[in-house]
Amino acid sequence: MSTTSRLVEVRQNVMKHNDVLARALRDRFEAEEIYVVSLVSSPGAGKTAFLERTLTTLRDRFRVAALVGDLATENDAARLARSCVPVKQITTGTICHLDAQMVESALSDWRPLKLDYLFIENVGNLVCPSSYDLGENLRVVLMSVTEGEDKPLKYPTIFNTADAGILTKMDLAAAAEFDLESACSNIQAVRPGIPVLQVSAKNGAGFEAWLDFVQSRREQFSAVTTR
Amino acid sequence: MSTTSRLVEVRQNVMKHNDVLARALRDRFEAEEIYVVSLVSSPGAGKTAFLERTLTTLRDRFRVAALVGDLATENDAARLARSCVPVKQITTGTICHLDAQMVESALSDWRPLKLDYLFIENVGNLVCPSSYDLGENLRVVLMSVTEGEDKPLKYPTIFNTADAGILTKMDLAAAAEFDLESACSNIQAVRPGIPVLQVSAKNGAGFEAWLDFVQSRREQFSAVTTR
Repeated sequence: MSTTSRLVEVRQNVMKHNDVLARALRDRFEAEEIYVVSLVSSPGAGKTAFLERTLTTLRDRFRVAALVGDLATENDAARLARSCVPVKQITTGTICHLDAQMVESALSDWRPLKLDYLFIENVGNLVCPSSYDLGENLRVVLMSVTEGEDKPLKYPTIFNTADAGILTKMDLAAAAEFDLESACSNIQAVRPGIPVLQVSAKNGAGFEAWLDFVQSRREQFSAVTTR
Repeated sequence: MSTTSRLVEVRQNVMKHNDVLARALRDRFEAEEIYVVSLVSSPGAGKTAFLERTLTTLRDRFRVAALVGDLATENDAARLARSCVPVKQITTGTICHLDAQMVESALSDWRPLKLDYLFIENVGNLVCPSSYDLGENLRVVLMSVTEGEDKPLKYPTIFNTADAGILTKMDLAAAAEFDLESACSNIQAVRPGIPVLQVSAKNGAGFEAWLDFVQSRREQFSAVTTR
C-alpha cells in the first residue's frame, strides 16, 4: 500500500533527524557535566510521585531539575514544583512521546544549564517513547505492581531500550497479589542483566537503594567524561 | 521542518484510508447484525480480565467472539480461550494501536460471521488508539483505580472519543486511596454526560450493571438497524 510505505519512509527520516538532535544534546550534557535520567512507563505507573520524592531528596546536595511531558495539563509540573526545584512542563498535544527537539526547546531559556542531574519524565506510554532517543544517560522504565507481571513480554521494546527497571507501588503488592518472581523473570527474559529495583513513593521504601544506584551511575559517568 | 510536514500529510492519508475501511466494516457489521464493542485503556488497566468475565457471562445466551491486540505475545488470546469462545490475537509488532485493516484481516477466516457481539481489545495505550476508528458501535475506555484520578485530563482525546467509561479494579480502591468523586468529575469535564460504571473483575462487583448496559445498547442498535 503506497501511503503506508511512504509513512514508513517519512518516519525513518524523522527518526534519523531525532538521532542527530539527540546526539547533539548528549554532547552538550556531557560538556556541561549533567547526568540525564529519563523515565518511561504506562500512564499511572507513578512516574511523577517517584520523581517528586527523588527530586526532594537530591536537591539538598545536588543541583537538580526536571522536564515533564504530557499530552495536556500542567498538573505534573505543578505537583513537582512542591519539590522546590526548577521544573518545566512539555505539553505534546496529540503526540504520544517526547522527542529530542522538544527537550532542546524546553531547555532553551534555561541557558546556561548549571545542573548535576536533569530528569525527563516522558508521556505515559509503553510503546512510542521507546524509539526516541532524548540524549539521556540512563533510561529507566517503571512498572507498577498493579499492572500485571506480563507487561515486559507484551511491550518488549521499551524494556529492551531501558537501562534500569523500577517496580513501583510496592506498598500495594499484597493487595494486588503481585508476583515479584514472575515480574522479575519476565523483565530479565526481555532484557537480561538489567538492574531492577523496588520502591514505594508512598512510604519511601527502596528509595535509598534507588538514590545510591543513580548516584553511582552518575559517578561512573563523571569518571569517564572528566578522564 | 519538511520531514515533519510530510509526516503529517502522509499520516492524514493513512487516517483517511482507515476511515474508509472502518466505514466498510461498520456497514458489514450492521448488515450481519453484530454489535461491536472496543476496549481501550493504559497497559495493565485490566482489559483482559474484564473481557474474560464479560465473555464467560455472555456466552450462555449470545454468540460472542473477541479480537485482542498486543505488540507481542499470544498471552491474552490464551487467557481468553478459557472463556471458551472464539478468540484471535492480533500482534502489531511495534505499532501502538489497532487499525481497521488489522481487524478486517483478523476476521477474514471467520466468514461468515455469525455473532451477536464482537469485542475488540486494543493495544494498551491511552494515546494512539484514539485516532483509529475500528468500525465499532461502542468504544469503552477503562481506567483502573490505581492509575490516578487525573488521567482523563492528561489523556483527553481517548476519553473524548469513548462512548462509556469503566472504572476497574474497584476491589483495590481503598488500598489505593482512590477518590471516586474526583475521577468521575475529571471524566465528565472531558466528556460531559458519558456513562461511567464501576467494576471489579476479581470479585465480579458491577458486572451485572455493565452487562445490562451493553445489552441495552445492543438492543437500541438492533432496533435502529432492523427498523
